Amino acid sequence: MEFVILTTFPDMLRPMISGSILGRAAEKGLITVKLVDPRPFSTLKHKNTDDYPFGGGAGMLMLAQPIVDAVEKCEAEGFRGKKLYMSPRGRRFDQRMAEELAREPSLMLLCGHYEGVDQRAIDIKFDGEVSIGDFVLTGGELGALVVLDAVARLIPGVLGDEESPEDESFSTGLLEYPQYTRPRVYRGMEVPNPLLGGDHAQIACWRRERSLELTLDRRPDLLMDMRLTPQDEETVRRAWLKGEQGKN
Amino acid sequence: MEFVILTTFPDMLRPMISGSILGRAAEKGLITVKLVDPRPFSTLKHKNTDDYPFGGGAGMLMLAQPIVDAVEKCEAEGFRGKKLYMSPRGRRFDQRMAEELAREPSLMLLCGHYEGVDQRAIDIKFDGEVSIGDFVLTGGELGALVVLDAVARLIPGVLGDEESPEDESFSTGLLEYPQYTRPRVYRGMEVPNPLLGGDHAQIACWRRERSLELTLDRRPDLLMDMRLTPQDEETVRRAWLKGEQGKN
Repeated sequence: MEFVILTTFPDMLRPMISGSILGRAAEKGLITVKLVDPRPFSTLKHKNTDDYPFGGGAGMLMLAQPIVDAVEKCEAEGFRGKKLYMSPRGRRFDQRMAEELAREPSLMLLCGHYEGVDQRAIDIKFDGEVSIGDFVLTGGELGALVVLDAVARLIPGVLGDEESPEDESFSTGLLEYPQYTRPRVYRGMEVPNPLLGGDHAQIACWRRERSLELTLDRRPDLLMDMRLTPQDEETVRRAWLKGEQGKN
Repeated sequence: MEFVILTTFPDMLRPMISGSILGRAAEKGLITVKLVDPRPFSTLKHKNTDDYPFGGGAGMLMLAQPIVDAVEKCEAEGFRGKKLYMSPRGRRFDQRMAEELAREPSLMLLCGHYEGVDQRAIDIKFDGEVSIGDFVLTGGELGALVVLDAVARLIPGVLGDEESPEDESFSTGLLEYPQYTRPRVYRGMEVPNPLLGGDHAQIACWRRERSLELTLDRRPDLLMDMRLTPQDEETVRRAWLKGEQGKN
């Protein structure tokens, strides 16, 4: 899968992309990540990429021209994929959108800076806007990295045997159960007993119960969208009753 | 404000922290960001920081001991702030939480990797878990950077005159209006007329209307939490009617 990130800070992003799992995926040829800086495309004398907003207000805006020309250069070189602008105004990114995007052959992400981007660049060239959450960042770069990371790790082969996209929070629709590794006792705290035996059914049951309890406690909204088995429902009912008793 | 990020990938993070606005804030002495790697704290022969989970399953877990010892070293050196674990199971990060955290004198963020962290490290040392959204990343580093960026930019002096924390998406409770900069006409697309005059009341009114329309269209949930003026309500009513007519 081919990723293009339009950013005026390519040097800042490079180590995050070449490091860790993404770098390994690129080495294996599973993904390519191209960083494209709109600055050299600016037709202004000093290669400016920003200017004051019409109508006033604090802050600078990114000019449409360098962005549109950078996109068209990529298109001339064969880019045919989805083009998204990272913006707090966008559609909320979540695991489902990551799964959707992982089926695309290529993806372009535009990182805004300052107060944003001239609306006409978005209107002319982009298919949509994506937000990673209800918070404001100094630029779109972290959002683009989040989308890149969440999408890339779903591509078959990107995660090694050491990692696994199954059983995690959201992939089952529930928050993940607590996990423990060695030693058995650490500072007087023991690993829960069911995890120490070899009874796989018991382990699966313990984990499912903890996942359900955690989800009920922290994100009851997630349970609304789920199909629960009768056993799940019993677990949730018991956890809920325990919580109610705790209040009295 | 003092930030401590516990990560086994400090080199990957460094350029993101020294670049852009965060780097400038550090130079100005407004923030300090310390990257602490738990690896040297490992008491194992090969300085391992991970091991297989009890109960089986794919993936490795981060060991409790190197993390707990790294935290205690920071505490011995005077760290007294909030300690949060970046995890999809955590409380959802949003602009309100960013504002809360910006009032803290210091903040520690633990980045998990692989399948997560031995639960006992969290139970012993951390005050809570924070999630930047309903998606899974290859590690906690991007989440920590998002929290760092969103919090740091709220600290007085961090944003220069060129940037502004006002009027943005979420700071008014609404999504931001579209913005335009020069030229007046780009590829046949004109800047909306009200923005070209010098009538500040008219500009403010145009922007408020566009914000309300965008929010109604993309994030009607945000309008539920807002106190709207009668004029706002009229704008929303008209935009809603227009949308309904568009459906027929």
